[in-house]
Amino acid sequence: MTPTVTAFERSPDGGKGLARDMRVRWALEEVGQPYEVRLLSFKAMKEPAHLALHPFGQIPTYEEGDLALFESGAIVFHIAERHAGLLPDDANARARAITWMFAALTTMEPPIVEREMAMILERDEAWYEQRLRGLEESVRKRLGELSARLGDAGWLDGGFSAGNLLMVSVLLRLKGSGLLEEYPSLAAYVARGEARPAYTRAFAAQRAVFTAASAG
Amino acid sequence: MTPTVTAFERSPDGGKGLARDMRVRWALEEVGQPYEVRLLSFKAMKEPAHLALHPFGQIPTYEEGDLALFESGAIVFHIAERHAGLLPDDANARARAITWMFAALTTMEPPIVEREMAMILERDEAWYEQRLRGLEESVRKRLGELSARLGDAGWLDGGFSAGNLLMVSVLLRLKGSGLLEEYPSLAAYVARGEARPAYTRAFAAQRAVFTAASAG
Repeated sequence: MTPTVTAFERSPDGGKGLARDMRVRWALEEVGQPYEVRLLSFKAMKEPAHLALHPFGQIPTYEEGDLALFESGAIVFHIAERHAGLLPDDANARARAITWMFAALTTMEPPIVEREMAMILERDEAWYEQRLRGLEESVRKRLGELSARLGDAGWLDGGFSAGNLLMVSVLLRLKGSGLLEEYPSLAAYVARGEARPAYTRAFAAQRAVFTAASAG
Repeated sequence: MTPTVTAFERSPDGGKGLARDMRVRWALEEVGQPYEVRLLSFKAMKEPAHLALHPFGQIPTYEEGDLALFESGAIVFHIAERHAGLLPDDANARARAITWMFAALTTMEPPIVEREMAMILERDEAWYEQRLRGLEESVRKRLGELSARLGDAGWLDGGFSAGNLLMVSVLLRLKGSGLLEEYPSLAAYVARGEARPAYTRAFAAQRAVFTAASAG
């Protein structure tokens, strides 16, 4: 059964692939599962029909027969559990890959998003420069720790996995900020993710949505 | 094999059960799995021996034979996968319970922690009152959405699950703030979690560590 994923009708990132449907598209491409996309306006995201699928009124959601899921992490995990390629077979290696999924979303992403939000919402406040410096230090601390763990390996904990997919997706938010670039091994890690054919296909698909919306 | 969990030698919350080892203790108590605890000073958490277990230098970790995990969400999931009682048998219900695990940690917890951190770190800044009001609104938005989804059900999506365990753990951080109390159904939901015998046992165990450290 072909799953349906929701995405922004017009992504606020301008088609840079930073919206969270990208993670789900990428995972589906990695395992070779075709999917359909249903686009939503910001207005539609807050209406009852979508809130029934996603209590927090966000994208992405995932519908497959009578199953409906939200939360990009849970959706990527669902895909990884049901197809080969995103979680190791060995039980301990699998548990560690899942650990990196949680680490990406609960340890790395919050300070990165907090910095982004301050850059959008607090730019005109008197405290902005001071706050921004503090937020950048929080992000650097995590990048330094992650870089130390990655060492000179290609991927965290062995081969490519759902954990690496989510970690690369989170770090991509920092691309061009200068912060990621302070850690060359992490910048190279992100570039390895972007170079995967499945990533390229997923990126092109989300980009096409934005291009069509801009032309329309 | 008895697993070993790490916890703070002296929890910064004063034994209120808000440190993240509590979630793991609670999950282990729910499934009836005995465990050992290794206590760590703040200094030890940043030393190489612990960083080898936890790249971000935090607690809890989970060791079981040659498996070592970090991230409370991943550890709770590992426990839930290997024992009955925390995830439904039905595949779709199981996927939804996992969705609530991610929702607790990636949608609900970040604004709650951001508010807590501002209350600790920014209390003396000129911008504090203005920032705090904005942070409280972010928390209220999520509480309102969660409350709407919970409705008059006892638990999110059926029976008690690892998703509810993590959601209650996250909401407990707000207890006494006044914010949780603005949503009586969520306050009652948290109280239902606290009333579970497994929660009570886990709470007493972490409390005893703090009491002993304070007496020592």
